[in-house]
Amino acid sequence: MVKNTYMRWRLPLVCLLWEVAMIVLFGVFVRFDPEADAHWKEEQLQKNLTSDIENDFYFRYPSFQDVHVMIFVGFGFLMTFLQRYGFGAVGFNFLLAAFGIQWALLMQGWFHSFENGKILIGVENLINADFCVGSVCIAFGAILGKTSPVQLLILTLFQVTLFAVNEYILVSLLHVKDAGGSMTIHTFGAYFGLTVTRILYRPNLEQSKDKQGSVYHSDLFAMIGTLYLWMYWPSFNSAVSNHGDAQHRAAINTYCSLASCVLTTVAFSSLLQKKGKLDMVHIQNATLAGGVAVGTGAEMMLTPYGSLIVGFLCGIVSTVGFVYLMPFLESKLHIQDTCGIHNLHAMPGFIGGIVGAVTAAAATEEVYGKEGLISAFDFTGDYKDRTPSVQGGFQAAGIFVSLAMALAGGAIVGAILKMPFLGDPADENCFEDDVYWEVPEDEESGLYHVHDPTLKPVTS
Amino acid sequence: MVKNTYMRWRLPLVCLLWEVAMIVLFGVFVRFDPEADAHWKEEQLQKNLTSDIENDFYFRYPSFQDVHVMIFVGFGFLMTFLQRYGFGAVGFNFLLAAFGIQWALLMQGWFHSFENGKILIGVENLINADFCVGSVCIAFGAILGKTSPVQLLILTLFQVTLFAVNEYILVSLLHVKDAGGSMTIHTFGAYFGLTVTRILYRPNLEQSKDKQGSVYHSDLFAMIGTLYLWMYWPSFNSAVSNHGDAQHRAAINTYCSLASCVLTTVAFSSLLQKKGKLDMVHIQNATLAGGVAVGTGAEMMLTPYGSLIVGFLCGIVSTVGFVYLMPFLESKLHIQDTCGIHNLHAMPGFIGGIVGAVTAAAATEEVYGKEGLISAFDFTGDYKDRTPSVQGGFQAAGIFVSLAMALAGGAIVGAILKMPFLGDPADENCFEDDVYWEVPEDEESGLYHVHDPTLKPVTS
Amino acid sequence: MVKNTYMRWRLPLVCLLWEVAMIVLFGVFVRFDPEADAHWKEEQLQKNLTSDIENDFYFRYPSFQDVHVMIFVGFGFLMTFLQRYGFGAVGFNFLLAAFGIQWALLMQGWFHSFENGKILIGVENLINADFCVGSVCIAFGAILGKTSPVQLLILTLFQVTLFAVNEYILVSLLHVKDAGGSMTIHTFGAYFGLTVTRILYRPNLEQSKDKQGSVYHSDLFAMIGTLYLWMYWPSFNSAVSNHGDAQHRAAINTYCSLASCVLTTVAFSSLLQKKGKLDMVHIQNATLAGGVAVGTGAEMMLTPYGSLIVGFLCGIVSTVGFVYLMPFLESKLHIQDTCGIHNLHAMPGFIGGIVGAVTAAAATEEVYGKEGLISAFDFTGDYKDRTPSVQGGFQAAGIFVSLAMALAGGAIVGAILKMPFLGDPADENCFEDDVYWEVPEDEESGLYHVHDPTLKPVTS
Repeated sequence: MVKNTYMRWRLPLVCLLWEVAMIVLFGVFVRFDPEADAHWKEEQLQKNLTSDIENDFYFRYPSFQDVHVMIFVGFGFLMTFLQRYGFGAVGFNFLLAAFGIQWALLMQGWFHSFENGKILIGVENLINADFCVGSVCIAFGAILGKTSPVQLLILTLFQVTLFAVNEYILVSLLHVKDAGGSMTIHTFGAYFGLTVTRILYRPNLEQSKDKQGSVYHSDLFAMIGTLYLWMYWPSFNSAVSNHGDAQHRAAINTYCSLASCVLTTVAFSSLLQKKGKLDMVHIQNATLAGGVAVGTGAEMMLTPYGSLIVGFLCGIVSTVGFVYLMPFLESKLHIQDTCGIHNLHAMPGFIGGIVGAVTAAAATEEVYGKEGLISAFDFTGDYKDRTPSVQGGFQAAGIFVSLAMALAGGAIVGAILKMPFLGDPADENCFEDDVYWEVPEDEESGLYHVHDPTLKPVTS
Repeated sequence: MVKNTYMRWRLPLVCLLWEVAMIVLFGVFVRFDPEADAHWKEEQLQKNLTSDIENDFYFRYPSFQDVHVMIFVGFGFLMTFLQRYGFGAVGFNFLLAAFGIQWALLMQGWFHSFENGKILIGVENLINADFCVGSVCIAFGAILGKTSPVQLLILTLFQVTLFAVNEYILVSLLHVKDAGGSMTIHTFGAYFGLTVTRILYRPNLEQSKDKQGSVYHSDLFAMIGTLYLWMYWPSFNSAVSNHGDAQHRAAINTYCSLASCVLTTVAFSSLLQKKGKLDMVHIQNATLAGGVAVGTGAEMMLTPYGSLIVGFLCGIVSTVGFVYLMPFLESKLHIQDTCGIHNLHAMPGFIGGIVGAVTAAAATEEVYGKEGLISAFDFTGDYKDRTPSVQGGFQAAGIFVSLAMALAGGAIVGAILKMPFLGDPADENCFEDDVYWEVPEDEESGLYHVHDPTLKPVTS
Repeated sequence: MVKNTYMRWRLPLVCLLWEVAMIVLFGVFVRFDPEADAHWKEEQLQKNLTSDIENDFYFRYPSFQDVHVMIFVGFGFLMTFLQRYGFGAVGFNFLLAAFGIQWALLMQGWFHSFENGKILIGVENLINADFCVGSVCIAFGAILGKTSPVQLLILTLFQVTLFAVNEYILVSLLHVKDAGGSMTIHTFGAYFGLTVTRILYRPNLEQSKDKQGSVYHSDLFAMIGTLYLWMYWPSFNSAVSNHGDAQHRAAINTYCSLASCVLTTVAFSSLLQKKGKLDMVHIQNATLAGGVAVGTGAEMMLTPYGSLIVGFLCGIVSTVGFVYLMPFLESKLHIQDTCGIHNLHAMPGFIGGIVGAVTAAAATEEVYGKEGLISAFDFTGDYKDRTPSVQGGFQAAGIFVSLAMALAGGAIVGAILKMPFLGDPADENCFEDDVYWEVPEDEESGLYHVHDPTLKPVTS
């Protein structure tokens, strides 16, 4: 069966209609947070309130920019490792994230920043929108190279919606702490993506086997993504934590966990190969597992050595996952996971949820101080009588809620994506930019970087 | 006619003499701003003034670094899309920007930071110098691949000078607001560059047609530039806004406009190609038009949905410009615009000026608050009686002043650059690094990445 | 003699054992700094102390992230210029830095942040750990392509140790100011690395001569490293300076020095080549010398024009070093310096030490203000009677202490690295990723980016 991958009407239609919808919804609902509104000046002057530097912008903007880089360059370039799918990796990631952040501002806004019929947005909303889209970028990793841009936009629409619902359940109903998103972003995003790719299983994907590998320079492009994710992860995990010590602590814990994770990844990458050589796939991915796994616990008193332990274990789990589990998932469970998100996000995210639950349950006034404990877990208002051990229980519940939402949501969305008119590529054209992109001639005419017309492939 | 592109005496002479001139002028004129001067400590202690965190450094330094990345990596890598001009793109951009920021510190300093015979520089001056050079990077985009480094340095000298004059007229004489530079940076820079490239028109440029395209990996390098420009644009437009809500608001508006712009760019890129495939040139460039077009209005109460609308339109205008207008400009008006700056900077910059004028004219005390309105437009001192609608008129005037300065200045500078001894390349050597750079052998000997000496081109 | 480069047991063993050691030592010693500890909230509330924004996190975190990028992307990608060693450059740099920062937190912590038996870490410790590892990255540049990952980890262990001792002597015993590390990082790191590579001299290294060059795209990857180092160097030199004017000033001075350096680098790169063409090696490296050379003086009242002069000279010194000194060092002194760290770090670092000593000696109350002078050089406590000229003397002493530590330490560590079982590559396999990495097939089978199976290597 020949697949129709012609995008000329479908893609523009979806992009334009949805963007118009965004404009209308923003027009009706979205306004500036008081700290970004011009009235702020007046309030300051009248009430002699605060210095400009107390504006939340200065607490969070540097972290926001780091997170922004992670979403667009980090995820985008991490996925350029495929030899013939660099445009799709970085370009489709750009597209879905640009749409996703708008829809996330609305969805998260309705749940968390809705006042008098308006969503009031400030820098923290921008970070949370980026976070939400991060979970879509993760899911994209599982189906990379096998879907059309229209499918990706539909995926984004639904996944952002479900993300916001799940986040609301966790953060608002269960009063769970998850500032770095081990549960809301990684566990949810990864299991969602894995379910979708399971539904979209392609039995004959080996027809494009030759394009599933990397080339030398595509691996270097991917390392740009890896390093930006790795370097800025301390910003990711601390970006929406409480001002002051919590942000400070979250950055330190994440820094430690990631450092430790690199060493066990290298160790196991070498150990699990007969020739003892390092595998770029592991270095590009498993080194990041330590950041995922302290997403919940980093802002707590996890301590630097606790973080090292978490990173240590996750480097191992993730690398072993790439070597042993991934082939098993593909052959037995029919889960074709292009980027190995099960190893980088699913397992470490799940571990991160548990680490957070245990750390919360173990919290004491001795370690946090009386006010520190209240502040760290926001034991105020309706929750002023909650104890750390109860909090630990709710944290654990949050993992399974995220998992359930991911599996159920992924199944439904996967089914929607199977609709035949969405333009997905044929099996033999997967992992191939040429399907959706104008590709420069050097690549189209035989894949080599040779521009001299007098040089030809020849038999001697 | 054989062109003499030998740079050995000309380029070093210009670099060394001009740098010596910079040293002398800095020695005579440039000192630290009080907030960067060691006396600040004394003032603080004596007068019990402010906390260290109130130093302007902490309000602006993170934005400064983002802007810095945009100028050097953003513009530099964006222009590496050409298959054989990566060294020139990133290297000459580096050279002209490094010279330009020094000269801009002086020129802008004389106009804006001159006190008691000294220019006092702080972090805001660094940002403004980067901004000024940004307009040169834009103009460089039009003549990319067709000029010698000596020509580029001369261009920089003159353009920075004219930029500072134009900026003085707008900001100081007309009291125009243009924090993100839709007029001063983009409109001025782009029309200046387009005029220069018109004057330098090469009728036989098709002789290097084969080098005007990209190769697969050069397009990925260019995406690095695109994404850094896109991600950090909120910092660009907010970097020199008023402390507090204005910076906050400018970042949010820019974020929204850029997100929207991506969707319409993708839509029209697909729509305007018969095969419906996406074109990397559009994704690399038109996605940024939304940032350009809110350069003036972002710090005003443009509102998030207003920003979405601006981004929506500019993605369309820019992409349509690439497809239809650019061939027209080249064939009919003889404007050879290598990077398509007319689509990315000229038209969106012009639109940005209008958006700013309309937003200013529409400002009310209801929307800004009484103090907020005064603060946002600096209606104090000589301008305390200016009304928003008058401000709108002056804003509109600023567009045309910038345009006039660009066209007149570009014509003069273009004529200067035509002087025969400046070392520009022959038509058949345009877009070719080999003219000014030592290029590794792999590329010189037939353009292929083949290092094995046993592999040879063969005739069948 | 055939070298055994099989890493399967050695590398994992070192990684795992050392990481376990880190966990144990962190468990015993490392805790959060009060500003990162949950008790901070309590102290604030009880004592009505300070605003959250006064937390050191907000003074230093943006600079920290910039420094972090310099270490991992800056140094990592700068070294990818070799055509066949990109994985090793960026991957081994990642590995050694990830281990090094942990060990540096301990070593520097024992010397500088040890209270009641615990090392208390905050954001400033993270920066200092990155700084320390920076000196290892520099040394790595000298031996790039010629060592195994096990050797690199051993090098890191010892060099970090010696760095911390040297830093303690300079900063604590001699009371030397060196916020940007001209002495502690660059002079020490570079002469250490040069001594190591001298000890590891390979007389037959020309056997891998064909791999010591770059290819077109590897030079572009390297420019990513260069530009991030260049752009973020103002953050590097200001990251641990005193709050307020000192950080502000350090950034400005560094910005100026680097800008100036680019022009003299370009001038001399062209001047010293017969064909007058620019050499990417110079642009990639010598443009950074200006940042190295104001590492000590940047936070002092070096002044913008003073910085321009330093940058001016260092661009020349560094480029001349690449053209004339480097071949001499290799042929006569048997110092095989892969990346030319002698030109980029050793000489400019030494100059930077002198610049700092002279600037300190020339300090006056008139220029700094009474309090400013005390604050800038920390003339308090035991040092309250120290004069600027005495300070200058101690600064100068710091250069030679660093040099002596580097030479002695490098000799010892070099000897240790000569042990035969550490897995270094044979001469003909140097600068070749294939030894330690799984390399994609396109590269293994003849080094060319050609995927068309009909094109084959031919025997002539």
